[in-house]
Amino acid sequence: MPGSSFGQAFRVSTAGESHGPAYVAIVDGVPPGLELSEADLQPDLDRRRPGQSSVTSQRQEADTAEILSGVFEGRTTGTSIAVLIWNKDQRSRDYSDIRDKYRPGHADQTFDAKYGFRDYRGGGRSSARETSVRVAAGAIAKKLLLERWGAVVVGYVRRIGDVEAQIDDPASVVLDDVEANIVRCPDPSAAERMIQLIERVRKEQDSIGGIAELVATGVPAGWGEPVFDKLKADLGKALFSLPAVLGVEYGAGFSVATARGSENNDVFVAPSAEEPRIVTATNRHGGMLGGISSGMPIVLRCAVKPTSSLPRPQPTVTTSGEKTTIVTRGRHDPCLLPRFVPMAEAMVALTLADHALRHEAQCGVR
Amino acid sequence: MPGSSFGQAFRVSTAGESHGPAYVAIVDGVPPGLELSEADLQPDLDRRRPGQSSVTSQRQEADTAEILSGVFEGRTTGTSIAVLIWNKDQRSRDYSDIRDKYRPGHADQTFDAKYGFRDYRGGGRSSARETSVRVAAGAIAKKLLLERWGAVVVGYVRRIGDVEAQIDDPASVVLDDVEANIVRCPDPSAAERMIQLIERVRKEQDSIGGIAELVATGVPAGWGEPVFDKLKADLGKALFSLPAVLGVEYGAGFSVATARGSENNDVFVAPSAEEPRIVTATNRHGGMLGGISSGMPIVLRCAVKPTSSLPRPQPTVTTSGEKTTIVTRGRHDPCLLPRFVPMAEAMVALTLADHALRHEAQCGVR
Amino acid sequence: MPGSSFGQAFRVSTAGESHGPAYVAIVDGVPPGLELSEADLQPDLDRRRPGQSSVTSQRQEADTAEILSGVFEGRTTGTSIAVLIWNKDQRSRDYSDIRDKYRPGHADQTFDAKYGFRDYRGGGRSSARETSVRVAAGAIAKKLLLERWGAVVVGYVRRIGDVEAQIDDPASVVLDDVEANIVRCPDPSAAERMIQLIERVRKEQDSIGGIAELVATGVPAGWGEPVFDKLKADLGKALFSLPAVLGVEYGAGFSVATARGSENNDVFVAPSAEEPRIVTATNRHGGMLGGISSGMPIVLRCAVKPTSSLPRPQPTVTTSGEKTTIVTRGRHDPCLLPRFVPMAEAMVALTLADHALRHEAQCGVR
Amino acid sequence: MPGSSFGQAFRVSTAGESHGPAYVAIVDGVPPGLELSEADLQPDLDRRRPGQSSVTSQRQEADTAEILSGVFEGRTTGTSIAVLIWNKDQRSRDYSDIRDKYRPGHADQTFDAKYGFRDYRGGGRSSARETSVRVAAGAIAKKLLLERWGAVVVGYVRRIGDVEAQIDDPASVVLDDVEANIVRCPDPSAAERMIQLIERVRKEQDSIGGIAELVATGVPAGWGEPVFDKLKADLGKALFSLPAVLGVEYGAGFSVATARGSENNDVFVAPSAEEPRIVTATNRHGGMLGGISSGMPIVLRCAVKPTSSLPRPQPTVTTSGEKTTIVTRGRHDPCLLPRFVPMAEAMVALTLADHALRHEAQCGVR
Repeated sequence: MPGSSFGQAFRVSTAGESHGPAYVAIVDGVPPGLELSEADLQPDLDRRRPGQSSVTSQRQEADTAEILSGVFEGRTTGTSIAVLIWNKDQRSRDYSDIRDKYRPGHADQTFDAKYGFRDYRGGGRSSARETSVRVAAGAIAKKLLLERWGAVVVGYVRRIGDVEAQIDDPASVVLDDVEANIVRCPDPSAAERMIQLIERVRKEQDSIGGIAELVATGVPAGWGEPVFDKLKADLGKALFSLPAVLGVEYGAGFSVATARGSENNDVFVAPSAEEPRIVTATNRHGGMLGGISSGMPIVLRCAVKPTSSLPRPQPTVTTSGEKTTIVTRGRHDPCLLPRFVPMAEAMVALTLADHALRHEAQCGVR
Repeated sequence: MPGSSFGQAFRVSTAGESHGPAYVAIVDGVPPGLELSEADLQPDLDRRRPGQSSVTSQRQEADTAEILSGVFEGRTTGTSIAVLIWNKDQRSRDYSDIRDKYRPGHADQTFDAKYGFRDYRGGGRSSARETSVRVAAGAIAKKLLLERWGAVVVGYVRRIGDVEAQIDDPASVVLDDVEANIVRCPDPSAAERMIQLIERVRKEQDSIGGIAELVATGVPAGWGEPVFDKLKADLGKALFSLPAVLGVEYGAGFSVATARGSENNDVFVAPSAEEPRIVTATNRHGGMLGGISSGMPIVLRCAVKPTSSLPRPQPTVTTSGEKTTIVTRGRHDPCLLPRFVPMAEAMVALTLADHALRHEAQCGVR
Repeated sequence: MPGSSFGQAFRVSTAGESHGPAYVAIVDGVPPGLELSEADLQPDLDRRRPGQSSVTSQRQEADTAEILSGVFEGRTTGTSIAVLIWNKDQRSRDYSDIRDKYRPGHADQTFDAKYGFRDYRGGGRSSARETSVRVAAGAIAKKLLLERWGAVVVGYVRRIGDVEAQIDDPASVVLDDVEANIVRCPDPSAAERMIQLIERVRKEQDSIGGIAELVATGVPAGWGEPVFDKLKADLGKALFSLPAVLGVEYGAGFSVATARGSENNDVFVAPSAEEPRIVTATNRHGGMLGGISSGMPIVLRCAVKPTSSLPRPQPTVTTSGEKTTIVTRGRHDPCLLPRFVPMAEAMVALTLADHALRHEAQCGVR
Repeated sequence: MPGSSFGQAFRVSTAGESHGPAYVAIVDGVPPGLELSEADLQPDLDRRRPGQSSVTSQRQEADTAEILSGVFEGRTTGTSIAVLIWNKDQRSRDYSDIRDKYRPGHADQTFDAKYGFRDYRGGGRSSARETSVRVAAGAIAKKLLLERWGAVVVGYVRRIGDVEAQIDDPASVVLDDVEANIVRCPDPSAAERMIQLIERVRKEQDSIGGIAELVATGVPAGWGEPVFDKLKADLGKALFSLPAVLGVEYGAGFSVATARGSENNDVFVAPSAEEPRIVTATNRHGGMLGGISSGMPIVLRCAVKPTSSLPRPQPTVTTSGEKTTIVTRGRHDPCLLPRFVPMAEAMVALTLADHALRHEAQCGVR
């Protein structure tokens, strides 16, 4: 019932708050014998951390992960892996300016409603900083997916504001394309305009939303459960569990609302010399049919809202219901998308690793 | 790990296939003392069943639910409730025309990949007919939500193809508005055009997609968990677990991609005589902040693809990979949306009932 | 949170009460392709049903199971299997003599405390009749264990009152030995005395307790999880979930309290031509070390209390707390043990099937 | 599926190994507002730690717990609580003498069978040192039970070898009685003899088993679920999840095997001025009927085997199956019982806290 665990066969549990001493993840169910060290976790942590570029928050957090258990002589033992990230940058300051105010778009009011009180120094448990240990756990899942099934998860920024990337084939995007620029958009021309847009928004003391696209290639047909635990259902849960996500869609997504069945169905193609599997000619279904992976690339998109914290004054109320204004200090991201990409990749990887093991538990390895 | 159960505190497990003798749901965790009989389940089952109007499948299925346990002298006992729906219309016919072919858009290929074989007579476990027992379970959840918290879940058709309903305030729509026409759209003018569109699509031996909107009013602030089991995450899973759903969005949804923070944040409003609670002036957040209900109406939309089964011939392959064509006989829905509405309401109600009990388990009743 | 489900990878959920129309089980996670029909379930149901012999309840219940889903053309499909058992013998009678009284040793008082009211016609959800569908589910687990791993679960009566069976090697007992007499004790001489004892107890309008021993052979080394979900922990839960069980012990059991380590440790034996595996010379550990199966037979015992329902008057109180006496009518078992054996076998089999799949999910097939 | 989590509403997940840098527990679902600090955890950690007296291991481990999250300004926030215990005494030594040998009674062979390899420096994940973080989590559960329901869990040593304590009323034992001597036996005379027995066994380079008794008083009637998650089932799982436990029994326990129903049933007693509740005259049922707490004290006993590690040489085999002998160095407990008491109390408290919240989730507070 408590909500700090995710997954059934490959399960991650987390603890930690933005203004506490540390974040912890326990990753349970990892198969034994996987080569693993802190060096496997750091690259994605570096992609997620603030202070990485001019388009993110300028807050400096090192986010160095320590593995405290579950690895012996460089390989996973099959028992639970604890990952610890210290919060090194916890400077004490006076919080009286925000203590009794509800920040718009944040969880202050809902935490008070739920728990009766909250850590008024920041987002506490609702802070996006919690995703640091998810990203570390996701890096373990990514390594397992790659080594055991050759599956790869890549995410990138598809749209920021009015700037949309031109991506002809999502399944052809590789990590190097994504990391080629600071905004994580594999279309270099769009990336340029996105960076300019973010800079402009920042100067205007505002923030802007966008869309991230995630692609998983190499996923074999057969992962996912037919009813409640459809792969699209568990991926949907995974992505909506990230802060700021207000929409998720697969394949043709919301455009199916205006489509005819005769044009929306992806036609199956007979195997050939180049492609010995039965595949579909198009991928409007986004790689899953009946909730089970079809062998086609899994393609999905997340709508991410503009950062709620703004350096400009916003009207709000106090915890006792009086009108006031609030200025959210700190160094916030003018656009969440560049740092959202590794968070979303982690959640997709965790979901896939979980369903891979679940599938093999029941149906074995074919 | 197996995927036929949903929920933690209020949990439903289902069994049954389209061509088997019956569907069963076990609903566990229902609080004791709730008045309940089959009459409470039938209205939503009637809204879901095929053959109900000219815009749905003409297949006739009565879908009468029997309660086999968990109710004594008209009240729930607190122990598990079994609901049984017989498949009465199971006529035997020759299936050789579809036995070895993969229906486009269906789960035939993915079931074969997962399980090695499947019930070739139809969708088997992946059939949307499975939602009949979910709807029955959802009716129990709806009754609990209403009686204990005064919360109401209503869904309706927002768009079919290019026809979009004009709904000024989703939270003001009531069941009678929805049931006022056969397409379940509370905008009478749009409903008229939707019906015409569906009739035209049917004549063209085609199908069409659309968007359903779901609203939950009366949900108190505080339901949902802050990290993985955010209310939006579990609602997202619930809705993506329904067949044909390719997109889910809350509040402002995908439009946040082009929004600025300064315009996207919903401003908190000081309590007044008419509204003694702290609410927000707008509801772009869709009723949840930080994954926890804010007390504002929960508003979400689902993108539903056009029916994959078409009466016209479609190209496909055989199970052994040879080119062929397929005509899906049977009497299919030219548009899934009118019958999707009660399915989606059920999943929203099941999720809310689960989180209501989960919240009270930890935080008690305030 | 609700308690009507058992297992994670191989999961059974049940519903039904003693005085309701039917019992239902949903068995989820069964691997696809297992040959299965109602005929596989009936033998164990016949071993469990009342009215089977002179030493059990004389109540006649046929307990015929119907499989409603999850099997196609004689094989499991991999999707959830529903099993239905109608309660055919539900005669209406006047319950005013027990309606407001708490039967000693039963769950009447605790159900009232928990739920506020209860089905006063009998045990309701707490009735041992609920184990009928567990036994049906257990028969599926037994078949899977045998066909996939060659593992066999056998139970028998070890002791009734002062009569203890002489069993030199629990692992050598086979089903035919158990079924050779109506009391299910593989020691024919002890069986004779047990039957006489039960007959005597019945004449005295009393009941008597006993001990059942359960053995699982053919279980490979490696099943079970190292910490909370030790195999002994989940078996313990499984057996204590059966009515009337007040004690469970493995291998040397309670006798370890007086043992020295030097004599209690089971010495490992070097492989030989007859036994190529590393085994232990003795089996005081009961087949599990560190919570994981060692490859030695799993041996455990359950202490089962004497039937609480007695045909003689017993002092008790009314639901409002006044002194009274109660005579429990009906035809009760003078000793639960003969019918307990198949119930316990089912729970052991369900636990082992679950852990088998869990193990292979994480560690694969070696 | 992985086994490092326990509980549903009040859930603890653990990580860590005997020769790793640290142990971690994440405790999720704790109600908000409970006063909590490290000082609440230390007393039970001190009762569990080695080196505490002459009858335990002489190994010195401080076992100081740090709370890393979930507590703000001295009270629980309702979000997950991380507890960290560093392994301070990790001296590197040469392990070549045990690296390739299977220690009798330990999990070396079963870990190799399960995972293919293991941390050969000690018990790794199977080490009883893992219970340190369980004890810390249990201390939180104890505090919640006491403050919210007035329930108290106390354990003590009932028997070591042939020395059995005389305890007339288990429910009257309080912590001070238990802590009055180093062997944790509230019968001072038996305690004396137990200490002498342990000293003798230690001198003989041997070890000895025993029985611990656990009592929970103040538990209201109504906790526990009627079918699989009976309170006795989940307590049984909890206790069997502890190392070295080979038997668990409630109330009259194994003695019911020879009892008649007429003498075994606990008679209900009409309320009186001193006792306004309906209680039973005796407590052979151990405080639970039908798996639900009756309001009488919960009484159970665990059989704990003698320590497997012995300073004397024992015959065994190498990992490749050759005969050898092994001497387990280190400073082991000659008897596990004195340190077992707080471990078992923790597991009982965790189970009760979980069921308390589960009960209130469904049935509310009466």
